[in-house]
Amino acid sequence: MPESPIRKLVPYADVAKKKGRTVYHLNIGQPDIETPEVALNAIRNFDQKVVAYSHSAGILSYREKLCEYYSRHNIEITPDEIIVGAGASEAILFAMNSCLDTGDEIIIPEPFYANYNGFAINAGVVVVPIFSDIESGFALPPIADFEKAITDRTKAILICNPNNPTGYLYSKEELEILRDIVKKYDLFLITDEVYREFCYDGNTQYSAMYLKGIEQNVIMIDSVSKRYSACGFRIGCIISKNKEVMSTALKFAQARLSPPTFGQVAAEAAIDTPDSYFEAVSKEYLARRDVVVESINSIPGCYCPVPKGAFYVVARLPIDDCDRFCQWLLEDFEYENGTVMLAPASGFYSTKGRGKDEVRISYVLNVDDLKRSMKCLEESLKVYPGRTS
Amino acid sequence: MPESPIRKLVPYADVAKKKGRTVYHLNIGQPDIETPEVALNAIRNFDQKVVAYSHSAGILSYREKLCEYYSRHNIEITPDEIIVGAGASEAILFAMNSCLDTGDEIIIPEPFYANYNGFAINAGVVVVPIFSDIESGFALPPIADFEKAITDRTKAILICNPNNPTGYLYSKEELEILRDIVKKYDLFLITDEVYREFCYDGNTQYSAMYLKGIEQNVIMIDSVSKRYSACGFRIGCIISKNKEVMSTALKFAQARLSPPTFGQVAAEAAIDTPDSYFEAVSKEYLARRDVVVESINSIPGCYCPVPKGAFYVVARLPIDDCDRFCQWLLEDFEYENGTVMLAPASGFYSTKGRGKDEVRISYVLNVDDLKRSMKCLEESLKVYPGRTS
Repeated sequence: MPESPIRKLVPYADVAKKKGRTVYHLNIGQPDIETPEVALNAIRNFDQKVVAYSHSAGILSYREKLCEYYSRHNIEITPDEIIVGAGASEAILFAMNSCLDTGDEIIIPEPFYANYNGFAINAGVVVVPIFSDIESGFALPPIADFEKAITDRTKAILICNPNNPTGYLYSKEELEILRDIVKKYDLFLITDEVYREFCYDGNTQYSAMYLKGIEQNVIMIDSVSKRYSACGFRIGCIISKNKEVMSTALKFAQARLSPPTFGQVAAEAAIDTPDSYFEAVSKEYLARRDVVVESINSIPGCYCPVPKGAFYVVARLPIDDCDRFCQWLLEDFEYENGTVMLAPASGFYSTKGRGKDEVRISYVLNVDDLKRSMKCLEESLKVYPGRTS
Repeated sequence: MPESPIRKLVPYADVAKKKGRTVYHLNIGQPDIETPEVALNAIRNFDQKVVAYSHSAGILSYREKLCEYYSRHNIEITPDEIIVGAGASEAILFAMNSCLDTGDEIIIPEPFYANYNGFAINAGVVVVPIFSDIESGFALPPIADFEKAITDRTKAILICNPNNPTGYLYSKEELEILRDIVKKYDLFLITDEVYREFCYDGNTQYSAMYLKGIEQNVIMIDSVSKRYSACGFRIGCIISKNKEVMSTALKFAQARLSPPTFGQVAAEAAIDTPDSYFEAVSKEYLARRDVVVESINSIPGCYCPVPKGAFYVVARLPIDDCDRFCQWLLEDFEYENGTVMLAPASGFYSTKGRGKDEVRISYVLNVDDLKRSMKCLEESLKVYPGRTS
């Protein structure tokens, strides 16, 4: 199992904290936003006497409520097309286990969410990365690159939209390109859409579930973690209209008996979160994104695209090695008694050597802390011994 | 993936219910006992504003509290020897993934908890069953049988103590036999001890964690599901003093980010459940066991041992095929407008053809319902067309 790029620096952060420094955590996807009251109230009012196993696919009333949520997003599904999992994590594992056999290949544009590697290892599946370029803002790689990567063992393409770690929001046209490839080679399209609500500059997400003609190929992964700042609920789901896939996934779901009951109760209630919550959250993240993107692009030698979704940016810095740089920030640097913890982008690439001068920044802190963090990053680059230009 | 013996009859139970019949569910391990108030109160008083990811190994205060719980049972461990999982299910998967490579073999006395098969498939591990006999009350098979089963690919022995599905409680002497085999062949001993509190007739459980000289070989699996009738919490754990195993297991734990927060909060509070709760529960289960065992053994042609633990019995019935019989009970039989749902024991054997005349009965209903169920079973055997003697 590879070490997570988000976790491997934790011991160094502890060192910085022991030295009394403030560590600005821009490395993780844990939002500081409050979980909606309506969800927490459901937990506070929990009145069952026996906290029993739920249905292996999830509590029926929750799955029914989920259909209502998806319908608002023009995705029409039925409760038996949903299996609730312990976070998107378990849902992805269900998807890989149900769509691919041991040794089968899954194509993923890199950089990608590093934990996909762990799930692939768990499922015995081979990840085949194709390169998406910071110069294009991490747009979908050209068709030719997909076709070059396809072999007899290729069973699926996996995308994350809006994207973690790049924040890239795939367009309708890009989704249609994927549709054509998927159709031509009869592949599964596994689509991780947990950041659906996090779209900026007037954009909305174009779901893979909208694509016509590949309804049997699309497996959607979702989660309440980011949507409702509810990472601890551990509630996600796998959704598909492919009965065979869902029937296999259900067997995996039955083997682990059921998803968490409390989390489902809270997640069901969360679906009634008022629009005003999302409007406030979206406004807040937009302000944060702008601070990060403007700051990065104003530092000499630094560059980052303007992402239209999620709450991450991947930035290119004038550094020799992002792992070394991120560790150095924690061990050896401080500015006004603080430092920043970033995620080295190398861990988001499957191809060795790529992303060495890139970092992922999660804008999950308030604007003031972000400004301090960006100032800190700017100062650090003035003195980092491994600076390249 | 094989179908669970507990689940595959669900459609037939639905048929019985549609006919207006009462179905006595003796097929599942879902207790009807109330979850302790102290645990539910912790959830009702949940006061965090952001339901965040917990530590991947579980909330530290919960792991500290767990150490206190185990210390009461004379198991001395530290918080870093515990990784909290989403139920024993996830903990077993962590154990298999961390102790065995793809194609490695794990020896399990059969009949065994059917979901072990699912986890083994998930982990790419080969289950090698060895036969434990209803005639001996499902005692540990002789050493010779273990030694015959051991190959170059054998990496672990898995036991469940007290046992699901047999209710058998392994003795200190049997544990010491296992210790010797494990030591001789340098194997892991994975020990599922989720029914620790469910011991009868003055017996207590002898944990594999007590064994001297194989501290590096023992991997304990535990869960709060049965202990506190808290199946819906989805909280279990893997415990080991083997740092290498725990370090690998932690990587799998990190890949799925964290166990459920609410369940951990409730489980931490549950550790303060008063002894009176367990005394009442134990008394209740003992009464239930006695109803089932006495009833079964008074029905002509039926036999079951007297199990000393858990809340299951495996009974031998005068039937041709337990799958057919259990289905027939739901589809074609009724007594006083009711019928029973049992788990065909065939599903708990890995060896094809074994357990065809056996069923698992979970005594998770109250005494009156159990008496009605047993009467129902008795009457059914008088008219079952596949009766053998």
